[in-house]
Amino acid sequence: MNFPAPRPAAQHSVLAKPARAVAFAFAGAILVGGLLLSSPAANTQGVFTSLVDGIFTATSAVCVTGLTVLDTATHYTLFGKLVILILIQAGGLGLMLIASLLSMLVIGRIGYLTRLSTQRESSAVSGEDVRTAALMIIKLSLAIESVVAAILAIRFGLAYGDDPAGAIWHGAFHAVSAFNNAGFALYSNNLMDFVADPWLCIPISLAIILGGLGFPVLVQLRQHWRNTLKWSMNTRLVLLMTALLLVGGTIFITAMEWTNPKTLGELEPAQRILAGFFQSVQTRTAGFNSIDIGAMHPASWLGMDVLMFIGGGPAGTAGGIKITTAAILLFIILTELRGETAVNVLGKRLSRSVHRQAITVALLGVAAVFAGTMGLLLLTNYSLDRCLFEATSAFGTVGLSTGITPDLPDPAKGILIALMYLGRVGVLSLGSALALRDRKALYELPKERPSIG
Amino acid sequence: MNFPAPRPAAQHSVLAKPARAVAFAFAGAILVGGLLLSSPAANTQGVFTSLVDGIFTATSAVCVTGLTVLDTATHYTLFGKLVILILIQAGGLGLMLIASLLSMLVIGRIGYLTRLSTQRESSAVSGEDVRTAALMIIKLSLAIESVVAAILAIRFGLAYGDDPAGAIWHGAFHAVSAFNNAGFALYSNNLMDFVADPWLCIPISLAIILGGLGFPVLVQLRQHWRNTLKWSMNTRLVLLMTALLLVGGTIFITAMEWTNPKTLGELEPAQRILAGFFQSVQTRTAGFNSIDIGAMHPASWLGMDVLMFIGGGPAGTAGGIKITTAAILLFIILTELRGETAVNVLGKRLSRSVHRQAITVALLGVAAVFAGTMGLLLLTNYSLDRCLFEATSAFGTVGLSTGITPDLPDPAKGILIALMYLGRVGVLSLGSALALRDRKALYELPKERPSIG
Ligand SMILES: [K+]
Ligand SMILES: [K+]
Repeated sequence: MNFPAPRPAAQHSVLAKPARAVAFAFAGAILVGGLLLSSPAANTQGVFTSLVDGIFTATSAVCVTGLTVLDTATHYTLFGKLVILILIQAGGLGLMLIASLLSMLVIGRIGYLTRLSTQRESSAVSGEDVRTAALMIIKLSLAIESVVAAILAIRFGLAYGDDPAGAIWHGAFHAVSAFNNAGFALYSNNLMDFVADPWLCIPISLAIILGGLGFPVLVQLRQHWRNTLKWSMNTRLVLLMTALLLVGGTIFITAMEWTNPKTLGELEPAQRILAGFFQSVQTRTAGFNSIDIGAMHPASWLGMDVLMFIGGGPAGTAGGIKITTAAILLFIILTELRGETAVNVLGKRLSRSVHRQAITVALLGVAAVFAGTMGLLLLTNYSLDRCLFEATSAFGTVGLSTGITPDLPDPAKGILIALMYLGRVGVLSLGSALALRDRKALYELPKERPSIG
Repeated sequence: MNFPAPRPAAQHSVLAKPARAVAFAFAGAILVGGLLLSSPAANTQGVFTSLVDGIFTATSAVCVTGLTVLDTATHYTLFGKLVILILIQAGGLGLMLIASLLSMLVIGRIGYLTRLSTQRESSAVSGEDVRTAALMIIKLSLAIESVVAAILAIRFGLAYGDDPAGAIWHGAFHAVSAFNNAGFALYSNNLMDFVADPWLCIPISLAIILGGLGFPVLVQLRQHWRNTLKWSMNTRLVLLMTALLLVGGTIFITAMEWTNPKTLGELEPAQRILAGFFQSVQTRTAGFNSIDIGAMHPASWLGMDVLMFIGGGPAGTAGGIKITTAAILLFIILTELRGETAVNVLGKRLSRSVHRQAITVALLGVAAVFAGTMGLLLLTNYSLDRCLFEATSAFGTVGLSTGITPDLPDPAKGILIALMYLGRVGVLSLGSALALRDRKALYELPKERPSIG
């Protein structure tokens, strides 16, 4: 079987075929998951759960967000928790697979064009390539999840007295939830009991960071660990931005909350740094919490809004507009301020078609968060800082909450469901649809420039 | 005297010569104005006013913002009010002159390049052109201000019992404040006493809208009133966006506040529409208020934040990132979603160099407002919605306030002073510096594209 090169006709609309297929697959998984999670079998009370709450939880799991309207620990039976786990794995790994195949198509086409221009033999992405890539993604995911699950299980068993089956279940659930950047936890206060435990916080953080790098980066790191010259611009950008945002976020959160008695203030200095680091990792966009988000300073929320909106690496389990998009916008500004013509990023020139795509993704993201925030303000009496945080967390599929989500009225829950779906499916579909599309201009109009600023 | 064509050497930095001159001129005017306004002669109590408050008021006047920390009506003597009026006229008209000359340089250079490419004779912008343009700007400004001042004076005299001198003074002050989009008023509650008076609200609105269109548009409208084919893309964009934002803003504010008893709720239906329209005009960025801004719904504030951030037309008395910048970003997104290569705006192709300039101006604006809001959050106990509104109002040189500005601590006042200066001088300098600069690339690096979304 040959994976067909996309045809221009199908690509001229944003709703091109691959994007549409992803949108339908996710909607289907949400519907089936929502029905299962609303059934009495999933509810510890043995009765039906409101369909809105079922759909909300399913969307939150499939879109690896982690926002909850019900207490996962006490409301759901083992069956319900298994459904959530499967939805997380399907949504996280599934989207990762699709995203990677889509970017293979993009890279394939660019390779194709390069080969044409250098008069070498042309080739499209083959079925063999697709099978190999899919297998690698699945193997890598399972490998990382298994290692982290084992470490967590040992710790749960040794330090918290879980029996072997309980330790393995807790280890596996949190490892999968972490690697897929889902943020669901099996404790009513998420991971707040473990704020000072590096043996849990650090492996979970590593799983989150690895998953959030995105598959293309993971594969390159595995293949060319030492040979940094072979790293693509994508890999360099993702690693650089991830490091910057992690360090910056850790410093910001730790400094802002250092003396806040409700968050870091009562901990030992080393524990404050661990908790600040852990919370900074969550904005890349896992959504666990080891401190009480609702008790943080509103300025901390505003800073975390930015981190959550940016999110993680493309074609991975992270959400947000992606750190590459943010980096491109940053480099465009630097280029303008320096007065250069070409946007050069880490020693390569940035393809011009990417400029407008980055702006489009970022500004449509701003519009989505803005509309969602406005809706929450109108439907509830909560303050702007909480509404903005909740909307950003949903759009960035982060799952952190100032505590208002469980108390929202159904229409407001609907807004968060829409934002989670848009943030996961919309951003990917839009990004790849823009990149995949053939661009053919039949004629150009005469040029003119209005004033800026 | 020949106005010299800018030399490449001076343009490679953002702090190119013309931009630097504007920055120093404004800083000088603020310093002198601040000293005068702090002097006992300006204070009805006959004592010194705090220098921070004097500098704040001078910045607010020169940058035609209209945010106040003191009650203009009762704190300042006639001398103080005259200083404010002169600062407004100097800042508004002065920047309009400079901005128009800078855009003549830009257009002159583009004309120059076009002529080169079509093998016709080249020419730079001459001293004669500069004198003609400056005279036209001054004449048009004084003409519009005089007509509006006369209408207002008649109304103040006939309906509010002002004696002739008082009516002329009130008419002139508010006409100058309106045309320059300054928003300073001679009443302690700004224009709230006149919420239902169309004879004052409509002339003031017209002066604001005309000043906010910007001089290039005003001149084209005067020269080619009927011949719309001769209108430039800049004129078309400004008129289209102004109409859209005025109508959209009126509908939004009127609908949001319709039943709010503290704003529109107690008025007659027709008066509610008048007040909604008047308040919508203020976001283009005059800053008068005929209703209590502090009593509006937080969702109204959020909507007005967007309108205030966008602002008015370039090279005029309005602030914000300018409606042309916003329009360009909008057209870039539409082009991306349609899958076209060239950004076509109202029948012309948009120069590619403008894309990155629009992004730069808009994103640096977002960064400034974000930093200012964060600062206010940290320095005060006010909520995010009020801090964001105040910061946006200062950056957009709007001057609307939720009521917190007079009570801010000095460092927070300093933040607003910086935002007003940046919003007025920074946006213009940046916009024209980017547009004026020579762009020469000595070599290009090999191209590569990272993933978006
Ligand atoms: K998440
Ligand atoms: K103003």
